[in-house]
Amino acid sequence: MKKFLNEPSTAVDDYVAGLVGAHREILEWDCTNRVLQRREAPPFPKVGLVGGGGSGCEPTHTGFVGYGMLDAAAPGQIFTSPVPNQIVAATRRANAGSGVLHIIKNFTGEVMNFGMAQEILYFEDIQVAQVVVNDDVSIPDDGETAGRRGLGATVLVEKIAGAAAEEGRELSEVLAVAEKVIARSGTFAVGLSSCTPPARGKPVYELAETDMDLGIGISGEPGRERVPMANAREIARLMVNEVLSDLAPKDGADLLMLVNGMGATPHHELYLLAGELTAAAEARGACITRQLVGNFVTSLDQTGAAVTFLELDQELKDLWDAPVHTAALRWGR
Amino acid sequence: MKKFLNEPSTAVDDYVAGLVGAHREILEWDCTNRVLQRREAPPFPKVGLVGGGGSGCEPTHTGFVGYGMLDAAAPGQIFTSPVPNQIVAATRRANAGSGVLHIIKNFTGEVMNFGMAQEILYFEDIQVAQVVVNDDVSIPDDGETAGRRGLGATVLVEKIAGAAAEEGRELSEVLAVAEKVIARSGTFAVGLSSCTPPARGKPVYELAETDMDLGIGISGEPGRERVPMANAREIARLMVNEVLSDLAPKDGADLLMLVNGMGATPHHELYLLAGELTAAAEARGACITRQLVGNFVTSLDQTGAAVTFLELDQELKDLWDAPVHTAALRWGR
Repeated sequence: MKKFLNEPSTAVDDYVAGLVGAHREILEWDCTNRVLQRREAPPFPKVGLVGGGGSGCEPTHTGFVGYGMLDAAAPGQIFTSPVPNQIVAATRRANAGSGVLHIIKNFTGEVMNFGMAQEILYFEDIQVAQVVVNDDVSIPDDGETAGRRGLGATVLVEKIAGAAAEEGRELSEVLAVAEKVIARSGTFAVGLSSCTPPARGKPVYELAETDMDLGIGISGEPGRERVPMANAREIARLMVNEVLSDLAPKDGADLLMLVNGMGATPHHELYLLAGELTAAAEARGACITRQLVGNFVTSLDQTGAAVTFLELDQELKDLWDAPVHTAALRWGR
Repeated sequence: MKKFLNEPSTAVDDYVAGLVGAHREILEWDCTNRVLQRREAPPFPKVGLVGGGGSGCEPTHTGFVGYGMLDAAAPGQIFTSPVPNQIVAATRRANAGSGVLHIIKNFTGEVMNFGMAQEILYFEDIQVAQVVVNDDVSIPDDGETAGRRGLGATVLVEKIAGAAAEEGRELSEVLAVAEKVIARSGTFAVGLSSCTPPARGKPVYELAETDMDLGIGISGEPGRERVPMANAREIARLMVNEVLSDLAPKDGADLLMLVNGMGATPHHELYLLAGELTAAAEARGACITRQLVGNFVTSLDQTGAAVTFLELDQELKDLWDAPVHTAALRWGR
């Protein structure tokens, strides 16, 4: 294992120190409660947004704290959900009197710990709502599983709900727009390698040079299926078919496309794949009017990529285009 | 070799297609001349900025075309300089009547082909100036080599000179500020692996699991020295010592720090390293007031990182903070 790392036990703290140091104008770290938060409270009592999850998926969620997205994030240890007390502290911090929205990815530990935090918060004067992001179309939605995992749509929910909160909308309205994003999005991820968690020191699994993994997660889970490696065009067609067959957008639908690297996929390859994904989606009659390409919901140093499609309407487009200033996503200010 | 790739011979075109597709509002591709250019001419006859170099270093330079940075970029084949005719076409495109600045990285092929382009342009009514970026402190500056390579400072030159041009400054003034950035910056790069060029299909060289390479380039060149792998804190101290000993900023200097991944280094590791680099620089009395962390001047899928320091003054800070809108760098609009 070769990484820029001091020791596995300090990987999260050392990362947070670097992140906050590089973005002092927007971030501060509450080291007692292990909450990463916006440095300045908003100028009016807006709805607060809280995200949290295992570390190793950076910039999710820590890189999305700031103007127009999250008010606080609770990073767990690598691939481990934050504990309930962290989420409670993040919620108190994010609360400005108008309530707080919890943005939860559908992983068992995360759902459980956010739930426990909500029980603790029940007796405080904070209105809490939640959404559970479950956009991974590689998992059957048949009630026989723990449900679909939360993947790239998490970024879209945080951006769009964040913009709605920044506009001054009420909690019920911010909740509704977050639910709309979840209902209208789907993701499919392909792995070209495993990742190497620092404490483990070696890859979680081996993947042959000739194979790729279809339907991977973001915590080192292997895919649902292992198939021979293909070229970018073939991979793009497969990914688009998986998502659009499931999402079934209306004919000529206006889509946002997130092309997301798993952590170690270079800019060159991600944009190359984005071009093929666009062609494959357009061949199915879709119209892609917004794109975001980069490593956003990752799995440490894994190579691979995921595509997320969101069927847009005017409200979602306006909220997507609204200004944002976080470590990992910034425009308009 | 596992990559998102169709075939090696189309890697550059397929990448550019994806990039332009994702950023149609700012970019267009002149496929005849192989020039990536700003979609809309500026509203006044500003100085034009042209960058160019071998592909594989993305987002350099293609990802930096847009408002506040480059007007046109000429991407060569992988690790191969663009040909003179490409640079000529890019220069004509970037020219709005106030002259054009060529931003050249100090690599033999690039210097030669930009020089040939300038000879061709000599008989046209376009005023051309040039800077050669040579910030790599790992190479002795003793006249016995082809000189220091251009690495991370390229991004800083393009951003800062781009802002000066956008302000309406004259060519001589834009040239002067670009030269100031070069004179006040230095870079040192560390490799944890080789990269794999698509046409080669395998790594350029092998690097043992226990070793790292000091002083690597951005075209698959191995380092000047191979040493045992160390932890992030030790690596950071070494990098900071290399750059600051050479740059010798004044005591208490105000520095911009670019922490640059080589293409496949994850967000988590880059920010962790940024924290250690900050601590090491501050221990030497420096004060870091601007930071940029990410994969900006890369070498395909290589893992590793470089640090660039730039000694700031008020002019450089103002130009750095000015709005920019490109595929890879964006703020303020």
